[in-house]
Amino acid sequence: MDMGFIGLGNMGSGMASNLLAAGHRVTAYNRSQDKVDALVEAGARPARTVADACGGEAVISMLANDAAVEAVTFGADGIIANLPKGAVHVSASTISVALAERLATAHTEAEQRFVAAPVFGRPEAAEAAKLFVVAAGDPAAIRDVSPLFDAIGQRTFAVSDDPTAASLIKLSGNFLIASVIESLGEAMALVGKAGVDKQQYLDILTSTLFGAPVYQTYGGLIARDEFEPAGFAATLGLKDVRLVLEAGDELRVPLPLASLLRDRFLTLLATGGEHLDWSAVGALSAWEAGGRSPVG
Amino acid sequence: MDMGFIGLGNMGSGMASNLLAAGHRVTAYNRSQDKVDALVEAGARPARTVADACGGEAVISMLANDAAVEAVTFGADGIIANLPKGAVHVSASTISVALAERLATAHTEAEQRFVAAPVFGRPEAAEAAKLFVVAAGDPAAIRDVSPLFDAIGQRTFAVSDDPTAASLIKLSGNFLIASVIESLGEAMALVGKAGVDKQQYLDILTSTLFGAPVYQTYGGLIARDEFEPAGFAATLGLKDVRLVLEAGDELRVPLPLASLLRDRFLTLLATGGEHLDWSAVGALSAWEAGGRSPVG
Amino acid sequence: MDMGFIGLGNMGSGMASNLLAAGHRVTAYNRSQDKVDALVEAGARPARTVADACGGEAVISMLANDAAVEAVTFGADGIIANLPKGAVHVSASTISVALAERLATAHTEAEQRFVAAPVFGRPEAAEAAKLFVVAAGDPAAIRDVSPLFDAIGQRTFAVSDDPTAASLIKLSGNFLIASVIESLGEAMALVGKAGVDKQQYLDILTSTLFGAPVYQTYGGLIARDEFEPAGFAATLGLKDVRLVLEAGDELRVPLPLASLLRDRFLTLLATGGEHLDWSAVGALSAWEAGGRSPVG
Amino acid sequence: MDMGFIGLGNMGSGMASNLLAAGHRVTAYNRSQDKVDALVEAGARPARTVADACGGEAVISMLANDAAVEAVTFGADGIIANLPKGAVHVSASTISVALAERLATAHTEAEQRFVAAPVFGRPEAAEAAKLFVVAAGDPAAIRDVSPLFDAIGQRTFAVSDDPTAASLIKLSGNFLIASVIESLGEAMALVGKAGVDKQQYLDILTSTLFGAPVYQTYGGLIARDEFEPAGFAATLGLKDVRLVLEAGDELRVPLPLASLLRDRFLTLLATGGEHLDWSAVGALSAWEAGGRSPVG
Repeated sequence: MDMGFIGLGNMGSGMASNLLAAGHRVTAYNRSQDKVDALVEAGARPARTVADACGGEAVISMLANDAAVEAVTFGADGIIANLPKGAVHVSASTISVALAERLATAHTEAEQRFVAAPVFGRPEAAEAAKLFVVAAGDPAAIRDVSPLFDAIGQRTFAVSDDPTAASLIKLSGNFLIASVIESLGEAMALVGKAGVDKQQYLDILTSTLFGAPVYQTYGGLIARDEFEPAGFAATLGLKDVRLVLEAGDELRVPLPLASLLRDRFLTLLATGGEHLDWSAVGALSAWEAGGRSPVG
Repeated sequence: MDMGFIGLGNMGSGMASNLLAAGHRVTAYNRSQDKVDALVEAGARPARTVADACGGEAVISMLANDAAVEAVTFGADGIIANLPKGAVHVSASTISVALAERLATAHTEAEQRFVAAPVFGRPEAAEAAKLFVVAAGDPAAIRDVSPLFDAIGQRTFAVSDDPTAASLIKLSGNFLIASVIESLGEAMALVGKAGVDKQQYLDILTSTLFGAPVYQTYGGLIARDEFEPAGFAATLGLKDVRLVLEAGDELRVPLPLASLLRDRFLTLLATGGEHLDWSAVGALSAWEAGGRSPVG
Repeated sequence: MDMGFIGLGNMGSGMASNLLAAGHRVTAYNRSQDKVDALVEAGARPARTVADACGGEAVISMLANDAAVEAVTFGADGIIANLPKGAVHVSASTISVALAERLATAHTEAEQRFVAAPVFGRPEAAEAAKLFVVAAGDPAAIRDVSPLFDAIGQRTFAVSDDPTAASLIKLSGNFLIASVIESLGEAMALVGKAGVDKQQYLDILTSTLFGAPVYQTYGGLIARDEFEPAGFAATLGLKDVRLVLEAGDELRVPLPLASLLRDRFLTLLATGGEHLDWSAVGALSAWEAGGRSPVG
Repeated sequence: MDMGFIGLGNMGSGMASNLLAAGHRVTAYNRSQDKVDALVEAGARPARTVADACGGEAVISMLANDAAVEAVTFGADGIIANLPKGAVHVSASTISVALAERLATAHTEAEQRFVAAPVFGRPEAAEAAKLFVVAAGDPAAIRDVSPLFDAIGQRTFAVSDDPTAASLIKLSGNFLIASVIESLGEAMALVGKAGVDKQQYLDILTSTLFGAPVYQTYGGLIARDEFEPAGFAATLGLKDVRLVLEAGDELRVPLPLASLLRDRFLTLLATGGEHLDWSAVGALSAWEAGGRSPVG
């Protein structure tokens, strides 16, 4: 498919590479040009502006937050002003429910199609084309871009005609991961202070009821106090918890565990952990229990 | 092995049956006699008193809480007064760290051996001999009773010479399960109120990062609002969270998520949910969000 | 002083009356005209538009939330477009730190002056001219409008040159009140379930260490389960807690008690308490302890 | 009145001095003898054992926790074994509801009388005879010892025939104080980080809705970061919050704010603040917001 790709960060560069590998013609845009150059060597065409990336049948945006998505979507040089009628904007970023709704409306008005398709997986999964895609929007549009999903992920879930549903599911998924981080952080602070070996403890957990990737990955990082380099930055963790809380506010759903996580992320950032992986939240219990700070 | 089994409840009856099936000679005791009769049909010898169950090389106790374990262990008719020197008391119950310590000391003074061996798994796993055994105590004693562990479980972890470690690990495991219940309860209250189908949502979770039994089992119960019959009663959930908090207090480890869970269990019990499965805690978020109470 | 007054709700009507009583010439605007008519009988001049109220040396706005303040301030018919150069806009509303900052900038650009002057006190205090005014902004501007503050309040605190400081202090004050509501709610749920008379309990508290108006007022409402009519609506309580949390997010200050309050307000609103006084949050503990809901 | 006084700590020494000053004949006991010597100079008779202090019409015990009260009450040398029939044991300590119940039963069995009379006030109030006494028990017994209450306090509240009620009220009062500490700690962390002067902020609060001793005293300590010497030690704060939570557990009342306080106290103690005043909990928010620890 002739397509554009906007946003070549930790996640996006792996996704774009896999699209190229699958035979799609990718025109790639990134704010800093060096990431584009790397992809051009793999066969991509470079885009100097967002508009340059909007000439094909579809464009995927994969950016860090609402503001970045808004910046490339609206305005004279944005996706909406430059994408052909009938073409599809696939938003793979983790964005707020409110923005998902706004994007859907704006693309419909411009006679374009919009699919919200946030992905589950860390950068290694993006590189290995092992992401999970949660897609929502017009069923025909989802079908048309499904070859792109096949190129980047191991499975696609079409969940709803309403793009906001995909946003909410993705955000709630990140909330669930952060909940695992917090619960493991507390449990390891407890058994660790009693002298139990954290790695052996994790082996028991993952051999029994907790044999899911999320426990293996994050449990390992917490057991080893290994929070750099950041696969998913603490600032992004806070952003997603904030968006979950905003969705809860809008829908009037109290979320005490999300509230706890919010305070944890603020503590981590306020005490110097901005550069750490979000799993560093799992080291705050041990710190409060008299151990050392994840910031060191 | 010639052994006794004390406590034929939800978990214990399955365990004792599997010990019989594996060829061990089991003398079984239970406070209410009808449970004993059922097991006698499967080949067990009935014990009228705790002392009757203490004549062999080992005795396993599997009871609901500290008080029940204390009642069968101490006093003239208790395990300590009646178990032969050198024989092993295997405590499979989930008990407090403090009681584990007290039992270890008392058995040593009586020249008996003590192994703390709490198990992971629900009644179905007990029946299917699929439990996980976390054993701590004298390594020779653990080795001597390992045929019993093989008969009831799929795997045994020998974690420490110190019996309290097994207690703490088991308690923290139940804390982690309760954390999953709470986090799923909040997430499902949120996406459910937005119109997402809870069962489909759970399918996405368990297909991606959350593919562990704990998500499948408890997520299913919450998605279906199915809290009866209680596989593990809410009162026992509160008991275990309370013991985790007590261990945290003793070791000076703040545990905000465990504190949240304590309040959740108290709410569930105070509003009439005493008879429900502990996963009913996962329905409290939806109730607070304006939905119906798990009590109905 | 020749002045305008915008917003004749629960608080504003009392304030405007007191300004009239003190001899100021008040041109009053309100979205619904009947409130204006009542004030005209007391001597005010009616304004048909916001612009009509902006002809004097100062204009006070007293509105329910950020959106309402934005609506009367910006745009062709707004305060900024119509207030004379050098005149002062006094914002007495409880608004976000972000909006305080935006207003300050906009008025400076328009060569007008801006004073943030939120007030402490319930409608009865507004009527009795017993408010406390927390003013921040250009010292000369504060001095110029101090006769207005004298007419509506018992004391004015000039806290900073920076208008956002007044906003933050006001919001944090409401957070402290809500904290008292929550703590009294929990304490009364506890002693009440033990059979202690709530009113006698409150008498002990206010005779000893807790002899402040905030305990008397809110403790009485909670002890009597008296949440209607709403002196300060639950929706406004949620708004202010939300703004405190946003300020904490911006400044990176974790606020676990504010997080708890947020969830309490969401629960109250989600279960039908939108019309109640914010003190109804203090009845949620008793509800969760098995008592009846404040909604009835 | 001819009476004994047991426990000459921070609080007890002031109380005993005031009993002497009011003309009562006080036989004083303390575990470490030097405190007794100081009081003997003021006119007290020294007791070498608890039994020595039990010869009069009444004995007051004022000790740090349940264990200390149990140690002087039960056993051959304890109050119960040595107090004359009909004499009154006044327990002024802050003790658990469970112990209050146990003491009431034991004294009744010994044909003695028991009054639970915990006091509100810090050591300065004890010294100045300005305590508030919350008394519960047999009305005749309360009447008989009321001259003692008059000597140590400014007012006595007779709340119930049931001694446990006084215990619960006292514990809940300490919970409310700790709640004020936490809420002020969060508010000051927030406004302080925004550059507002903490002392001026406190002045505004106490001039308006928060003009109670509890805000003045604890607000001042937090604003000045002045946590030594400890008027009421952090360890005692944790003890009382723990007792409140236990009472809540027994009565099935969820107490999320008390749960938060428990975690705060554990954090304070785990990070080295055992020697600090309990108001140091109010410095933890600023610490988590990137400021310095109250431990320094």
